[in-house]
Amino acid sequence: MSSRFEVTILGSSSATPTSRRFPTAQLLNVSERFFLIDCGEGAQIQLRRYKVRFQRINHIFISHLHGDHYLGLMGLISSMQLLGRKKELVIYSPKGLQEIIEVQLSISATELNYPVKWVELNPEVPEMIYEDSQITVTTVILHHRIPCCGFLFREKKKLLSLDKVRITEDKVPVQAYFTLKSGDNFTDENGRVFLSKDYTLPQSRSRSYAFCSDTRFDLRVAEQIEGVDLLYHEATFLHELLDRAEKTAHSTAKEAGIIARTAKVQKLAIGHFSVRYNDMEPLLAEAKSEFANTEIADEGKLFQI
Amino acid sequence: MSSRFEVTILGSSSATPTSRRFPTAQLLNVSERFFLIDCGEGAQIQLRRYKVRFQRINHIFISHLHGDHYLGLMGLISSMQLLGRKKELVIYSPKGLQEIIEVQLSISATELNYPVKWVELNPEVPEMIYEDSQITVTTVILHHRIPCCGFLFREKKKLLSLDKVRITEDKVPVQAYFTLKSGDNFTDENGRVFLSKDYTLPQSRSRSYAFCSDTRFDLRVAEQIEGVDLLYHEATFLHELLDRAEKTAHSTAKEAGIIARTAKVQKLAIGHFSVRYNDMEPLLAEAKSEFANTEIADEGKLFQI
Repeated sequence: MSSRFEVTILGSSSATPTSRRFPTAQLLNVSERFFLIDCGEGAQIQLRRYKVRFQRINHIFISHLHGDHYLGLMGLISSMQLLGRKKELVIYSPKGLQEIIEVQLSISATELNYPVKWVELNPEVPEMIYEDSQITVTTVILHHRIPCCGFLFREKKKLLSLDKVRITEDKVPVQAYFTLKSGDNFTDENGRVFLSKDYTLPQSRSRSYAFCSDTRFDLRVAEQIEGVDLLYHEATFLHELLDRAEKTAHSTAKEAGIIARTAKVQKLAIGHFSVRYNDMEPLLAEAKSEFANTEIADEGKLFQI
Repeated sequence: MSSRFEVTILGSSSATPTSRRFPTAQLLNVSERFFLIDCGEGAQIQLRRYKVRFQRINHIFISHLHGDHYLGLMGLISSMQLLGRKKELVIYSPKGLQEIIEVQLSISATELNYPVKWVELNPEVPEMIYEDSQITVTTVILHHRIPCCGFLFREKKKLLSLDKVRITEDKVPVQAYFTLKSGDNFTDENGRVFLSKDYTLPQSRSRSYAFCSDTRFDLRVAEQIEGVDLLYHEATFLHELLDRAEKTAHSTAKEAGIIARTAKVQKLAIGHFSVRYNDMEPLLAEAKSEFANTEIADEGKLFQI
């Protein structure tokens, strides 16, 4: 499968930027359609650094309304305006973000030249919030101090390819083709059944990416993201600070690993590190002790799925 | 005079950050008291870069409520909280900023552990808005698309030093000392007059810094900042884009030079450059054609006054 399905990490810090790290923001590229996931302060600086053209982003997903996940949005909206945007921008977030942005537009006397559509997320029930010809996006219910959603990006199943040799051998009628390609079986007027699996080629599976920021450790998260190719899960603390993690409704690196293992994902990326850590290796080692195929979600890192 | 009176430039860009430049923010250090002037997105990143301890900033002056001058404030306020601040923070700005910040604190369910005092500036009349033992801060009325104030920081006059030789020679009475040090003349009970200038040493003048962002060219600005040691004046465009400057209520580099010359300042620093410019030399040359002692207010530059 050659089309792109990849995530660029724009920020890996929690709470506050440091001199080397930005707060949470990620860019998902699905065949050159760009989706911004969270938008911490300085996200637009990072987008410029990685040479992403702002105007190609049409959908922004904000997990929750702590500053380190949305404070870059107002600046990005302004920059899109200054760069002459006309195209609609759709912003998904829990309740409150529209008010935050509109107060600022009003006080700065800014009238946007492009429409912004606000989609208010329900933080209680997983919902499919986006769909196009290639992917769906479903919310993942997280458990944080304020309403917070993760996002599950999943490729849609494509039509199957026909096995032309067998189609010809068995004289499968043309009117059966679409049904078989769709994965359904076809019965002709004489009652003869053609099974889709007999006349189509095996397809590689749909790729998927789950983004889980910020959440306390909760196995119900694992259920919602089972089997994804890549899971991003926050790992704010080392497990020795479990008390602190529980108090602040965050996860430890060990807990992120347990979620990945339980959910049987292919790969885990951890981030949202507390500013107390300068060296991320102990966090990585701790997550790996639970789930070997773990990587650090460092600024600039590209995860190809 | 050895005490510090110096400005560090944290951002020189207008409108939007670029990969190399941040929006407007400056730090004034008066004998290790720190004053933040404007706070564009990423200001806290720049403060960290230049190793300024956030908690030493007790007063923040915001000129106006376009995003490139205040979008870094919410993040800085949050970071001060996370770093354990208890001390009062005083924020000066035109009407609206308190609402912008309080909406966000409320939606993110954040209760600050330190008091914030909001001072609403009157953008119509210059006012002294701050005074301590060393300096006063007075607003400068600017002319932009929305209410906008500049700030004039001026050292207070200190008491003069007595000329001990002449004091002894002329047997000046002790009760005259304070009057003479204050710059006033003293008359003793016999009607003998002691002139302050005869018994005190010459004092270097009070230092001053004027910050003027953003404004259309207006000679009334020059009147308010006459003779300052350092003038920061925006220079968003080259004069060939005068039309654009007038439409957006900004100044050209040439106009900044004219203001500096008219106000007879000692030195001019220009900034707030349009993102269209990669090379600032033509802007500098243009300002210098009107006022020779001009410098670029580049990120990281320190102006000692």
